Amino acid sequence: MEIYPIIMAGGSGTRFWPASRSKLPKQFLDIIGSKTMIEQTLDRVSPICREENTIIVGNEAHHDLLNKVSGQKQVVILEEPFGRNTAPCIGLAAVYMRKHGVIDEPMAVLPADHFITDEERFRGILSVGGKLAFQGSIVTIGIVPTRPETGYGYLRRGSVQDEIDGVSVYNIKEFVEKPEQNNALKYLESGDYLWNGGIFIFTPEIILKEIEIHLPEVYEGLLKIEESMDRDDYGEILRSVYEEFPSISIDYGIMEKTGLPVLSIPGDFGWSDVGSWESLYDLRRNETDENGNLVQGKNLLLDTKSSFVFNQSGNQIVVGLGLKDLVIVNTGDVILVADLKKSQEVKKILEEIKRKGPTSIL
Amino acid sequence: MEIYPIIMAGGSGTRFWPASRSKLPKQFLDIIGSKTMIEQTLDRVSPICREENTIIVGNEAHHDLLNKVSGQKQVVILEEPFGRNTAPCIGLAAVYMRKHGVIDEPMAVLPADHFITDEERFRGILSVGGKLAFQGSIVTIGIVPTRPETGYGYLRRGSVQDEIDGVSVYNIKEFVEKPEQNNALKYLESGDYLWNGGIFIFTPEIILKEIEIHLPEVYEGLLKIEESMDRDDYGEILRSVYEEFPSISIDYGIMEKTGLPVLSIPGDFGWSDVGSWESLYDLRRNETDENGNLVQGKNLLLDTKSSFVFNQSGNQIVVGLGLKDLVIVNTGDVILVADLKKSQEVKKILEEIKRKGPTSIL
Repeated sequence: MEIYPIIMAGGSGTRFWPASRSKLPKQFLDIIGSKTMIEQTLDRVSPICREENTIIVGNEAHHDLLNKVSGQKQVVILEEPFGRNTAPCIGLAAVYMRKHGVIDEPMAVLPADHFITDEERFRGILSVGGKLAFQGSIVTIGIVPTRPETGYGYLRRGSVQDEIDGVSVYNIKEFVEKPEQNNALKYLESGDYLWNGGIFIFTPEIILKEIEIHLPEVYEGLLKIEESMDRDDYGEILRSVYEEFPSISIDYGIMEKTGLPVLSIPGDFGWSDVGSWESLYDLRRNETDENGNLVQGKNLLLDTKSSFVFNQSGNQIVVGLGLKDLVIVNTGDVILVADLKKSQEVKKILEEIKRKGPTSIL
Repeated sequence: MEIYPIIMAGGSGTRFWPASRSKLPKQFLDIIGSKTMIEQTLDRVSPICREENTIIVGNEAHHDLLNKVSGQKQVVILEEPFGRNTAPCIGLAAVYMRKHGVIDEPMAVLPADHFITDEERFRGILSVGGKLAFQGSIVTIGIVPTRPETGYGYLRRGSVQDEIDGVSVYNIKEFVEKPEQNNALKYLESGDYLWNGGIFIFTPEIILKEIEIHLPEVYEGLLKIEESMDRDDYGEILRSVYEEFPSISIDYGIMEKTGLPVLSIPGDFGWSDVGSWESLYDLRRNETDENGNLVQGKNLLLDTKSSFVFNQSGNQIVVGLGLKDLVIVNTGDVILVADLKKSQEVKKILEEIKRKGPTSIL
């Protein structure tokens, strides 16, 4: 058995604006550690997966960035002409594998822009997931919740189904949409819920069968793509099929509807989707100075606490005076100053810029 | 009688850093209105003073800026090699006037970087001050206090001495140094105190006599300068004399010590020394938008209140999210983000930069 890592790298990444842009999403940034998040995702699985089995599914808008990531590596890059959420993305990787004769090896679907603290533990759990998927299961690695988060979907787990290599495996009774605050609190307290971190493991055979049943129009398109994969008109077919694809997640399109049992392994390896400047600040708290400030780039802070300065310009100095809980990001063309605790609302700014311009800074 | 305006423009202006710099002090900025503060000071007196009677005393470090201000104007510019506070500055103007045969016309000493709302009223009061000075008095225009300010010196006034053109003239009993908070409150409540706004009117004859009595070493230096004024070695003499000058204010050096009566006219014309970003924001409050934000330059503000954006870069946009009571200044090389209510502490930053560098941004 060999695990095929499928790195989902098509995200448009608006949460780290202005450091992330439509042309430079978060997965291509080195906002945590010295490597980009996508490189870290590759490195994380490399001890248990063969490089040439790795498939990165990205967006053709990021063609150069994707090529730079693959570099000397023997990974496969599949470029989607448009983002259509995770179901078409995973389907594309699955038909690529089938086209290349791989139908019953586990494919481990991994978001390219998550952070994991205990990589050893993560690999252990991924390996167990691979074994279960190889035996025909649909597996998801849920994240053990640490707070009543309302920004994620949840998985309601049932009883222990198995115990493999010291890892407990549960069946999943329900996929739950993002909850209200009081429900999120209940989920946390009950201990029966996991965060849906978007990490899935299954074989191409099984997931394609499920797509055929629950998303037949997607399956039909995937078939056309699969047929064209060794032909000159692949790009053309891919584009015309993607134009017709619905934008639909694997969670909503398959997981919530499948008649097959879904297994889950609780992931207790320290996880973050690094969803905002605030969460990045929290993750890097060990790097803060005695005033709780996290600084990168030229800066001078006076009477300033719990703030985050991210200055990418070598020609400008960011000077703070009397500040608290602020994030200041300077990218050379944009200077963002935001309440760190409201930094998840950066999306509002992008909506405003879409309306009023200048769109060059999106 | 003709009033000779003496514009004191030698200030180093650190309060509006980073917009003001050691090479570009506040009086050369157009932070309020479309003209620079020094130009506004000139315009303010032009209806009652002849242009060719105007003397600007500045620092030679600002030679080009001073020349730009004088431009086509027939004003006299005297450049000090070093700033030595107001006593030498005023003495220099006085000996220049004496050298040119003017000894008993009033010289009105005016800081170049103050803002006045009711210019008509100001000129009325200045004219009365001129008349009194022409009759041999030392006159100061005090400012009617509007708050218990601890950042200014005060004048304790006595009884009404005169009533000229509808303007009451008081004698001054005492020059008071910057008070503690509780004293400032008492001063405000008593109604007997005026702010010392640094506006004085006297003749060269009288002030030079006072300098001779109370600051004899300064007077001696001024004599050397006066003698050299039509000679080639003027610059050399000026420099060597200034090197020896003490740094001393006219208030401390003369006003607090003079045996002559000092008269004061309460100035009720709307005055500000525009001493910080906060005071500038207050002065320009009529320009704020519905959220109380005052903005200049490219910006986009969301959920932001009572903040001041001063963006001098045409290539960068300042974006604010969830802010309150902040000032954001972008000068291209420096981005200052400060609590608006602590903006008078900008000086602390400059001290820090003097210690740690880079001094290029001072």
